[in-house]
Amino acid sequence: MDFPYRSALIVGTGPGISASLARRLAGFGVKIALAARNVQKLDALIRVGEPEIVVYNAGARAHGPLAELDPEAVQEAVAITAFGGFLVTQQAAKRMVPRGHGAILLTGATASIKGFAHSASFAMGKFALRGLAQSAARELGPKGIHVAHFIIDGAVRAAHRPDPADNPDSTLDPDAIAQSYVDVLRQPRSAWSHEIELRPWAERF
Amino acid sequence: MDFPYRSALIVGTGPGISASLARRLAGFGVKIALAARNVQKLDALIRVGEPEIVVYNAGARAHGPLAELDPEAVQEAVAITAFGGFLVTQQAAKRMVPRGHGAILLTGATASIKGFAHSASFAMGKFALRGLAQSAARELGPKGIHVAHFIIDGAVRAAHRPDPADNPDSTLDPDAIAQSYVDVLRQPRSAWSHEIELRPWAERF
Amino acid sequence: MDFPYRSALIVGTGPGISASLARRLAGFGVKIALAARNVQKLDALIRVGEPEIVVYNAGARAHGPLAELDPEAVQEAVAITAFGGFLVTQQAAKRMVPRGHGAILLTGATASIKGFAHSASFAMGKFALRGLAQSAARELGPKGIHVAHFIIDGAVRAAHRPDPADNPDSTLDPDAIAQSYVDVLRQPRSAWSHEIELRPWAERF
Amino acid sequence: MDFPYRSALIVGTGPGISASLARRLAGFGVKIALAARNVQKLDALIRVGEPEIVVYNAGARAHGPLAELDPEAVQEAVAITAFGGFLVTQQAAKRMVPRGHGAILLTGATASIKGFAHSASFAMGKFALRGLAQSAARELGPKGIHVAHFIIDGAVRAAHRPDPADNPDSTLDPDAIAQSYVDVLRQPRSAWSHEIELRPWAERF
Repeated sequence: MDFPYRSALIVGTGPGISASLARRLAGFGVKIALAARNVQKLDALIRVGEPEIVVYNAGARAHGPLAELDPEAVQEAVAITAFGGFLVTQQAAKRMVPRGHGAILLTGATASIKGFAHSASFAMGKFALRGLAQSAARELGPKGIHVAHFIIDGAVRAAHRPDPADNPDSTLDPDAIAQSYVDVLRQPRSAWSHEIELRPWAERF
Repeated sequence: MDFPYRSALIVGTGPGISASLARRLAGFGVKIALAARNVQKLDALIRVGEPEIVVYNAGARAHGPLAELDPEAVQEAVAITAFGGFLVTQQAAKRMVPRGHGAILLTGATASIKGFAHSASFAMGKFALRGLAQSAARELGPKGIHVAHFIIDGAVRAAHRPDPADNPDSTLDPDAIAQSYVDVLRQPRSAWSHEIELRPWAERF
Repeated sequence: MDFPYRSALIVGTGPGISASLARRLAGFGVKIALAARNVQKLDALIRVGEPEIVVYNAGARAHGPLAELDPEAVQEAVAITAFGGFLVTQQAAKRMVPRGHGAILLTGATASIKGFAHSASFAMGKFALRGLAQSAARELGPKGIHVAHFIIDGAVRAAHRPDPADNPDSTLDPDAIAQSYVDVLRQPRSAWSHEIELRPWAERF
Repeated sequence: MDFPYRSALIVGTGPGISASLARRLAGFGVKIALAARNVQKLDALIRVGEPEIVVYNAGARAHGPLAELDPEAVQEAVAITAFGGFLVTQQAAKRMVPRGHGAILLTGATASIKGFAHSASFAMGKFALRGLAQSAARELGPKGIHVAHFIIDGAVRAAHRPDPADNPDSTLDPDAIAQSYVDVLRQPRSAWSHEIELRPWAERF
């Protein structure tokens, strides 16, 4: 099967999901642009051409009891996690709707569906991103644009957080996450997924 | 049964839910302060004393296709709907936690759990408020503070939107909504509700 | 306010929720009939007259690893928890629809929305009852019948399971549960709740 | 990548999902056994060897207003949709747990998460199957068995229900569904999906 898209913009860099996804997409011949999450610079994204895939993979949080949180840090966390996702989704919609083709992938977390204590800002941002994803899917799906929201329900493996030797595969391998992103991109439009949760086999949920 | 609270701050004024709730609470001898939703003036709320009930009943939205939305209007809508709720919840937490007593009621909408097309900003704001409500409930519930989130699933009756004569009670009566808010405030702590949806009898859901 | 119903049938007896609810309803002048959960005898319910309120409060479970469960015990547990609820709801619908008046209250549990390990039969039965509740609400609500589903999210206090002295109100007081059932029965039809979760203040969720 | 399983039992035959899945699995060299949904004959399934994949794809329903449903037809529909799924899951668990390897796929529908009017028996059965899926996933996942629940949210294309020419891909292509089942089977255990919804691009949800 040919891969249905030829170019991708991935927002939110780092050594994790974005890099694994970029490598895997490149294997299908997809041209990749990576962008940092800096919302002040999102205008620059307008210049990245006409990506057929857009991935928003940025997030931020302020941790602590409600009474101790810095309101500005909360506002910034929500801006990066959700408002940045809106800006990217909007730019994607402007380019994809006229062509009736494209995919927008938004990366959520456990906090997208469960607001934990001492994590109000992350819950606010990730819940908001999920609301955006649903609204975008209902508007853009019938226009041929596949909007999907991924709930990464567990810790992602990283250099500073290696998989524990005595509990193998208890952290999400970024390559395994990227595999599911690619699977969703390859879904025929008669059977699209909108929301996909991914968690390690031994994770409680 | 005695009413368990003596004072209330209701944020987000207007002739609807806030006014009905204020009247009903006053009937129990509760002292009421009403405040507009203006987030720039929320600092002033610090001066309203030590309300035992805090209600956040403000919201805003920008309507239209994703590609046509004004990003600043989206940001402002999310700020009013969700960030204002955070600021009020934070101030409430600061005052209620030391006393181990209080109630925080946050008003949601159908958009709290379903993101509709052409309504991205409202979905973002109301989803975010729900994430805040869950996070606050998990942190503050065990400290004796009742955090409840109401999903108003339908149109609220108002002077400019009267109940249709040929479809009686197809809009939510603000007095009926206020009754359920009061019911939740009166729940003993051994059987609290956290999320309550309210909809007209004939509403599809 | 006058109480909107004059008679009630409560299925599933015992010293807990049913008894508390019966006492509280009797305080409003409601005539009460109590019935055991025995599904073989549910035909007899046809003879109890024309109750304006019907409550299904029965459940059963088989506990253990999937591989060790007795299939007959699973089938019986689902029959008591869900099929009994269907039979009672059906009889209620037959009587209430012609009058355009009535209330059907179905009692769920944490297992209504979360299937736990070693508790397959209870998850099956309580999930099924919730599906019934939604289907019944969508059919019967527009006919004037209030169908509500309660998620009792925690342990109910009982003689054999008293509230722990060092963790007060960490079990649900049946009287507190009954209070919320009555609150829902008193909701005006312009603002009905369909699903109500109740949990102790300190319960994790 | 090698395919991680070598044999499969698919319960619930017919020209749709089961056949497409069988063909696709066969393409990976998987040995297939197909079985009808007849719950009376499920004992026979014990003889099909030791399938590494088990799929339960059977369902039944009784349609109509609550007051008019035949209770026996409701009981049978729930038995086929959910109790048959339990029996198959139980037999699978017995064989897979000792090996610490296997996959159990359960097929749901829109009715798994939304109980529609006039469809009480289907909601009961599909909700119950979802409760089973969650309970099984929480028990069996940490034992190395991948339990996944698919929500088929739309009409499946069939000879008697062809895709409408003026609304292309508005019905789910069984081959497209089977593709997602295979994708889930190939997920590494560090990033499993438990619940996957599939719907046509233009479907309202």
